[in-house]
Amino acid sequence: MDYQKILDEIAAEIEPTIGKGKVADYIPALAEVDPDQFAMSITLFDGRSFHTGVSDRRFSIQSISKLFTFTQALGIYSRGLYERVGVEPSGNPFNSLVQLEYESGKPRNPFINAGAIVITDMLLSHYGSAENCYREIEAFVRDTSDDWSVSFDPVVWESEQEHGHRNTALANLMKSFGNIRGDVEEVVRSYFKHCSIEMSTRELSRSMLFLANHGTDPITQRQFVTTAQAKRVNAVMLTCGHYDASGEFAFHVGLPGKSGVGGGIVAVVPKVMGIAVYSPRLNSWGNSYSGTKALELFTTKTGLSIF
Amino acid sequence: MDYQKILDEIAAEIEPTIGKGKVADYIPALAEVDPDQFAMSITLFDGRSFHTGVSDRRFSIQSISKLFTFTQALGIYSRGLYERVGVEPSGNPFNSLVQLEYESGKPRNPFINAGAIVITDMLLSHYGSAENCYREIEAFVRDTSDDWSVSFDPVVWESEQEHGHRNTALANLMKSFGNIRGDVEEVVRSYFKHCSIEMSTRELSRSMLFLANHGTDPITQRQFVTTAQAKRVNAVMLTCGHYDASGEFAFHVGLPGKSGVGGGIVAVVPKVMGIAVYSPRLNSWGNSYSGTKALELFTTKTGLSIF
Amino acid sequence: MDYQKILDEIAAEIEPTIGKGKVADYIPALAEVDPDQFAMSITLFDGRSFHTGVSDRRFSIQSISKLFTFTQALGIYSRGLYERVGVEPSGNPFNSLVQLEYESGKPRNPFINAGAIVITDMLLSHYGSAENCYREIEAFVRDTSDDWSVSFDPVVWESEQEHGHRNTALANLMKSFGNIRGDVEEVVRSYFKHCSIEMSTRELSRSMLFLANHGTDPITQRQFVTTAQAKRVNAVMLTCGHYDASGEFAFHVGLPGKSGVGGGIVAVVPKVMGIAVYSPRLNSWGNSYSGTKALELFTTKTGLSIF
Amino acid sequence: MDYQKILDEIAAEIEPTIGKGKVADYIPALAEVDPDQFAMSITLFDGRSFHTGVSDRRFSIQSISKLFTFTQALGIYSRGLYERVGVEPSGNPFNSLVQLEYESGKPRNPFINAGAIVITDMLLSHYGSAENCYREIEAFVRDTSDDWSVSFDPVVWESEQEHGHRNTALANLMKSFGNIRGDVEEVVRSYFKHCSIEMSTRELSRSMLFLANHGTDPITQRQFVTTAQAKRVNAVMLTCGHYDASGEFAFHVGLPGKSGVGGGIVAVVPKVMGIAVYSPRLNSWGNSYSGTKALELFTTKTGLSIF
Repeated sequence: MDYQKILDEIAAEIEPTIGKGKVADYIPALAEVDPDQFAMSITLFDGRSFHTGVSDRRFSIQSISKLFTFTQALGIYSRGLYERVGVEPSGNPFNSLVQLEYESGKPRNPFINAGAIVITDMLLSHYGSAENCYREIEAFVRDTSDDWSVSFDPVVWESEQEHGHRNTALANLMKSFGNIRGDVEEVVRSYFKHCSIEMSTRELSRSMLFLANHGTDPITQRQFVTTAQAKRVNAVMLTCGHYDASGEFAFHVGLPGKSGVGGGIVAVVPKVMGIAVYSPRLNSWGNSYSGTKALELFTTKTGLSIF
Repeated sequence: MDYQKILDEIAAEIEPTIGKGKVADYIPALAEVDPDQFAMSITLFDGRSFHTGVSDRRFSIQSISKLFTFTQALGIYSRGLYERVGVEPSGNPFNSLVQLEYESGKPRNPFINAGAIVITDMLLSHYGSAENCYREIEAFVRDTSDDWSVSFDPVVWESEQEHGHRNTALANLMKSFGNIRGDVEEVVRSYFKHCSIEMSTRELSRSMLFLANHGTDPITQRQFVTTAQAKRVNAVMLTCGHYDASGEFAFHVGLPGKSGVGGGIVAVVPKVMGIAVYSPRLNSWGNSYSGTKALELFTTKTGLSIF
Repeated sequence: MDYQKILDEIAAEIEPTIGKGKVADYIPALAEVDPDQFAMSITLFDGRSFHTGVSDRRFSIQSISKLFTFTQALGIYSRGLYERVGVEPSGNPFNSLVQLEYESGKPRNPFINAGAIVITDMLLSHYGSAENCYREIEAFVRDTSDDWSVSFDPVVWESEQEHGHRNTALANLMKSFGNIRGDVEEVVRSYFKHCSIEMSTRELSRSMLFLANHGTDPITQRQFVTTAQAKRVNAVMLTCGHYDASGEFAFHVGLPGKSGVGGGIVAVVPKVMGIAVYSPRLNSWGNSYSGTKALELFTTKTGLSIF
Repeated sequence: MDYQKILDEIAAEIEPTIGKGKVADYIPALAEVDPDQFAMSITLFDGRSFHTGVSDRRFSIQSISKLFTFTQALGIYSRGLYERVGVEPSGNPFNSLVQLEYESGKPRNPFINAGAIVITDMLLSHYGSAENCYREIEAFVRDTSDDWSVSFDPVVWESEQEHGHRNTALANLMKSFGNIRGDVEEVVRSYFKHCSIEMSTRELSRSMLFLANHGTDPITQRQFVTTAQAKRVNAVMLTCGHYDASGEFAFHVGLPGKSGVGGGIVAVVPKVMGIAVYSPRLNSWGNSYSGTKALELFTTKTGLSIF
């Protein structure tokens, strides 16, 4: 398949959608981004990659970081992880407290904020200090993307902390149910820090290869998680990766994927490739408007879909 | 792969789980079934099929009928269908009224009761009378399973009607929001009728072939829905096919599937086969206890999974 | 106190509010009423009564009927009544199914629709047939208002039945939990019948005397309920009489009261008088806009309040 | 009426209930109290007071402090207060986050934790510092109880802070909606401080006189709030003073009242007296078991009730 041609076609076809949607503005640092950018990258198992748009420009990965931390924690805690976080779709917005209260502080899945905060707490416990914890998360992201220059944006980090009262509410609620072990403030600070990691679509599509290849990077042969674990991460991405629009994404795109309010989305074609798109304007569910369209066009054009 | 050997192994391995779980008892006609039965069938694209257990014994397909009616209505209404039923997981039990009330009478997806009742209403409108409607649904099930002896159980049908107050409540609530067009009693009666269709795992696994083959029966070459529609039906099965345990099923089994309280589960391996299992005892989410285990063993042993 | 002067003042002062709010339009028979009518009546223990506006014009009492049926059922079942209906404010709109589902089919109180439907079911069981049941309810209303010409409007009754799907949903949901004993259709029909009783403010204010006088009509000396029961009916009116605006009503008016979507409100000044107001336009909670204002003015001007 | 005799009778009659219920144990400092204590006090407008049990023993007033801070804030902000806190019963437990999320961070009423935290935030803004704020609250409590030795328990205060994650969650959630102006930690610390004030039933019954007398202390003639404000505080006590059992309390006791998890309850007989009871074991709604019974006996024996 001529992937470059397909990406170029997609870039042309999503053009009319570029002005649609609204950039995340809950923190000033995100609101200031150029809203009309677009990028898309795919990386194959043999290392070849194809790109369109601003594919080398780094942006805030935000909730895509939840995919890295979930996978990393799964490698450490294995099945024990599921005692503290479920794997069900929530049927609610990403930051809702309602279900958390009804279900005694156990988050529905690791891709809503509450779940990712518990995962952060588990990594903090494991690595002992906030500093070590962040360093290990960063190392994991660098390893999977095979790029050791990846880092976080301190301005976004600080901005998140100043406007993070709802996440602090989630963490305190879970603490009251005993599902946060560490200090609430430190857990939330750590959570915000890895949300502010910056990556390009080139790097993100590269970092998905191990999940497309059952846990082992097909280029470096490094194993990050087991085959069974990798399949399950993909399953959770499919059912829970887009908050309350996960069903829509499975329906229209048909691939495991994870979005972030920074405008990025990663997706996995099992046994074939890693994909990443970027466009900052968001649809009403908080997922990239043009990015979602681009992925839908991609699976329509290539026939690639897990269904 | 030696599928017969695999099925026989599974039958042996699930043996210890056979007494676990509880048969559906909300209607007497279902409660009277022998609780310790087990059957599993797979049917390949070339027509070969493999079986274990009571694979020729028919049982009440119950909510598996929702898969047939959804597909049939999709063929008739195409995208228009989604104006009245969504495709999101509900995060709630199968018969909950809560989300329906908050979301103005539009059911989350076609696989919860409310959604299937709206689909029934759409089929009733299309086919004009309750009699025609049921005959066409039955014909659709017979066509897809390639077996014209398939029919419904009048005792179960009547039993459902006598104990169906909650479903009547759902239908009335949706009527109050304008999302039921026909007469409420007639819609509910029609819904219960196709829920009481009886099939064996042999027949059910055969009937899944068209969904595994992008909408077209690979043996008869008859097209039931388009490629895009078939993929989307599979996507909705994956995200919503097991009520509030859909995430768990995707996670553990990794295949699109749909369960019924009669103890049956169907699943689809895209481009490969149709599967059906049967065992009447249910787990706490209302899905077959041993059936779910059998499917989990199957994907573990074969490596078949969409992830 | 010169009550006539006070009523005349109120009539003048609420004049500017008369065009505010919206007449109930969920059934055509109610929507056709002249929206700008106003009436207010008070009746004292010695039989004297004072009126302003169209105080002899009968209107649909709607949910005010819940007060009569609750009191009547309390006289029959005494404390046993509370096994099937609670006495807590609901914190939800009058016709919500949510709390009912969470609380296993036991309505919060007798003044939300679900509660009044259970009460109707209890009266039906007691009186044996729909015909007897309605006749006894009508007799109770006639006795308390000391007017044997009070009756129901068949056009409103029929109209309610044609548009009553949500109430039928509530009744079916409660039936599924075992909290409706009779036939659902018959219970709902009976409920709608007494909702369509018509009375004037003159008659309604007269009918409140027994509740103001601890259960015994101060003029006829007829006892309808015990002292303790009458006090408790008043308590439930205060905490639950205005749906999700009961707190507001207690706060602004400070008297036990019960409203109906027909535009009527009754209120009780313990040991002093019965009050009724009428004005068809409703505020956002479904209570008479000008009627609520008139009662607020009344307690401000007279200093009458239970607090 | 021979109040002393009535109190003595009550003390004898509640004796069998003394072992029922469970002391609040969410903080160690409260769990250590002798569970089987009982006290009851009434204070009349002429200054006479009657007592039974350990009426001079101080206990943690906990949520009864919400009544003081609400009244105090009402005196300062008047109607402006209601822009940030409502006056409706919540239909939910005292510390639920659900309704708060659905209703955009505006608490239902000033007597659930969220509402009292907003009130504390308002007092903090007004008095400028946490120190001044607490001093003014303490002064208000001392003035109304006419006892300048009233103070708080530092052990309880500290204990609350160590176990107060759910309240911190509430405060953070409201901050995210903009309904907390001050620093979240400081607001919560201040809230816990006045919750840990200690008073006896003697002092509490004395402190209710101004609310029984339309805002003005009948003994000192000091006016704390206006007549209209006092009536409205009483109305909110009646509809919301006992969390999700407010309807039950109105129904059984028939007086405006406010309870605390420390085991105290205050009540007001308009124009007649202030009442306080104390018994640490709580019923399933978190209100004093024997205290509630004692108040029910009191209104039955005296016929005092606002209904």
